[in-house]
Amino acid sequence: MKYTDLNTPNRTIMTPGPVEVDPRVLRAMSTPILGQFDPAFTNIMNEVMEMLRTIFQTTNQWAFPVDGTSRSGIEAILCSVIEPGDKVLVPIFGRFGYLLTEICERYGADVHTIECSWGEVFDQQEIIAAIRDIQPKVLAVVHGETSTGCMQPIDKLGTICREEEVLFIVDAVATIGGVDIKVDEWKIDALIAGTQKCLSIPAGMAPVTYNERVEKVITQRKKVEKGISTETDRLEELDRSHSFVKSNYLDLSMLQDYWSPRRLNHHTEATSMLYALREGLRIILEEGLENRFHRHQLHEQALMAGIEAMGLKRYGNPAAKLPTVTCIEVPTGVNPETVREMLLDQFGIEIAKSFGPLEGKIWRIGTMGYSCRKENVLFTLAALEAVLIRHGAKVETGKAMQAALDIYHNSQLIVHAEVL
Amino acid sequence: MKYTDLNTPNRTIMTPGPVEVDPRVLRAMSTPILGQFDPAFTNIMNEVMEMLRTIFQTTNQWAFPVDGTSRSGIEAILCSVIEPGDKVLVPIFGRFGYLLTEICERYGADVHTIECSWGEVFDQQEIIAAIRDIQPKVLAVVHGETSTGCMQPIDKLGTICREEEVLFIVDAVATIGGVDIKVDEWKIDALIAGTQKCLSIPAGMAPVTYNERVEKVITQRKKVEKGISTETDRLEELDRSHSFVKSNYLDLSMLQDYWSPRRLNHHTEATSMLYALREGLRIILEEGLENRFHRHQLHEQALMAGIEAMGLKRYGNPAAKLPTVTCIEVPTGVNPETVREMLLDQFGIEIAKSFGPLEGKIWRIGTMGYSCRKENVLFTLAALEAVLIRHGAKVETGKAMQAALDIYHNSQLIVHAEVL
Repeated sequence: MKYTDLNTPNRTIMTPGPVEVDPRVLRAMSTPILGQFDPAFTNIMNEVMEMLRTIFQTTNQWAFPVDGTSRSGIEAILCSVIEPGDKVLVPIFGRFGYLLTEICERYGADVHTIECSWGEVFDQQEIIAAIRDIQPKVLAVVHGETSTGCMQPIDKLGTICREEEVLFIVDAVATIGGVDIKVDEWKIDALIAGTQKCLSIPAGMAPVTYNERVEKVITQRKKVEKGISTETDRLEELDRSHSFVKSNYLDLSMLQDYWSPRRLNHHTEATSMLYALREGLRIILEEGLENRFHRHQLHEQALMAGIEAMGLKRYGNPAAKLPTVTCIEVPTGVNPETVREMLLDQFGIEIAKSFGPLEGKIWRIGTMGYSCRKENVLFTLAALEAVLIRHGAKVETGKAMQAALDIYHNSQLIVHAEVL
Repeated sequence: MKYTDLNTPNRTIMTPGPVEVDPRVLRAMSTPILGQFDPAFTNIMNEVMEMLRTIFQTTNQWAFPVDGTSRSGIEAILCSVIEPGDKVLVPIFGRFGYLLTEICERYGADVHTIECSWGEVFDQQEIIAAIRDIQPKVLAVVHGETSTGCMQPIDKLGTICREEEVLFIVDAVATIGGVDIKVDEWKIDALIAGTQKCLSIPAGMAPVTYNERVEKVITQRKKVEKGISTETDRLEELDRSHSFVKSNYLDLSMLQDYWSPRRLNHHTEATSMLYALREGLRIILEEGLENRFHRHQLHEQALMAGIEAMGLKRYGNPAAKLPTVTCIEVPTGVNPETVREMLLDQFGIEIAKSFGPLEGKIWRIGTMGYSCRKENVLFTLAALEAVLIRHGAKVETGKAMQAALDIYHNSQLIVHAEVL
């Protein structure tokens, strides 16, 4: 036989995704599959919806995964809401803002953008002013922009969106499960998550949630396949004045019927990925959201302390930093790609480059989910120091790990003091 | 903790999908993940492409999975090829023919259909006549229609499509890996497979293949995201006279760039599902395509012999039968759903109902992939007989398994004779 057993090298994955997966999640995937309409399986589907509501901090009825990678969730929400000619406002502060505009344009939206320098984010008042000025149907915002390592504050945008009758859609792919996001309190109308980042589940599912404001739009565009529609479905369709959604696979009105008690057949739910999602969410609920966010902050601080002690410069405005991604400027004269290659080949550590204008200028280190662990942070600092020395870069030696260890030590003192 | 460990019941899954998964495939999924641009991972991507070419019996460069369930693959092919106003011909002989028309309509196609009674298929000459008459840009055909258990012969359609400059697209979701399909020899321009049927891999990926004729259309519509495009990409785009694809997630020109040596970032490949696909394809190649098709035929024959010996009536024209799905008419006076429930609750066996006009009229039993085994066929016949007796149905008792065992016995005699 030409093809051998799957033999994969051991890796410490410190990119902004995909990140390492908890062995419990990997194990859950090897559970034998069930039929999609088996009550034992639909019960798991319902459990996952319930768990997602907790993670999303929402009472929304609709919270389920789209069967595709993160951008399938983004496209599902956008294409189900946007009709040709609809005004959409997208504040852009990195690559994934462009992705939102690109998807909106494909579906015929009248896209308006505001842009700020990469490495910065907007003051929320700037976005609010743009909403008042442009009066869009939809405001679509990236929460955590992994391309620049920046996070846009969004807690004040929902209120103004309600006042102005704008639908507020948030791409939280890079933040969900690592950073606090309050869907209901922040009045987010629809939110898209990704599995392969802070949820630490393999790529391939995009959990989404949306409220009645979004559901209302979707229901007006509903379409049931001819092969399975009833007379009632067909009569209801005649009454609809809004255009149907271009995509069948990503039409939320169909996905919703499948995830509802009606269980109207659409796709065949990705069984093993749903097992993985369930186990990953269960781990998060066991850890507790607050503890989890605190853990992400702690390791971010240790990593940043180490980076700075080494004498490296962080990229981007510190006040705008995304807690789950740390960007580092490549020191002058150092080949960014041979550094990454040496980290991978000699240490089995993967860190990321960036995109577009930042390609070759910065490295990006993720501290996400199961990868966000003390030993990973310390090992990455140790390896980066050694590789940079090997590349002849000027680094402060022997200081990075000490700085990180100090952070860990002090955090234990704080915990200890709190207990007393 | 409110949520317990994942506890799933044991099931014998005899539906037309999702079907049981080989333990080797389940195990492969628990392999730790790799980064998507890790050379160890891109090497696996390339291996999977190579294996898919063998399964598809093609030398096409493009053979890769779309990260979504089967219909994501169908939509990826159709939406990447169809521009608004394009004429598409769809011969309909069941529910999934309607699905093709539904997707084509959403993307603005001028859809022409020919229909035959459910339970029948077309003479290929009828389709050829329709091609000549309608002169479509695309002919889209379902190969195995699981809703009716029928299979459309398609070996003569490719030649005429070349002559008439029609793109020939085949939905082989229900047949690939279970029935012989010669992509190159039959001049199929694009073909979509599904994982959860005869490939016996969990749902969540849709392997597709297409040739240069399709690639040419796709290339004319190519679009690179602004966040990652180069000056060359942008200049090339200006030259294109064709409309871009509506979907970003399912745009084959982008997927193709990601699966090509350029590895242009699109989605994050679904790592664990790709591991599953690789192992599932490896198992098929180890078994050998011919052996695998023969095994599917053998168990289908045993199942049919048992069904008939029991005195049950098969649904559909026997000459049009899909070898991987056997449909049975529900006997008069028997509640089809309580039969299915009792099979599931008492025996842990799942068989399927059908859709639309056939709902409540027939049961559908799949013999696909890893579920297509002797013990599964015998157990299903035994259980069905017992459940039907319990329902007061008139069945010939004690005969079904004897008839199936005869088929198995005779097949061994044949194999023995061939060896001698």
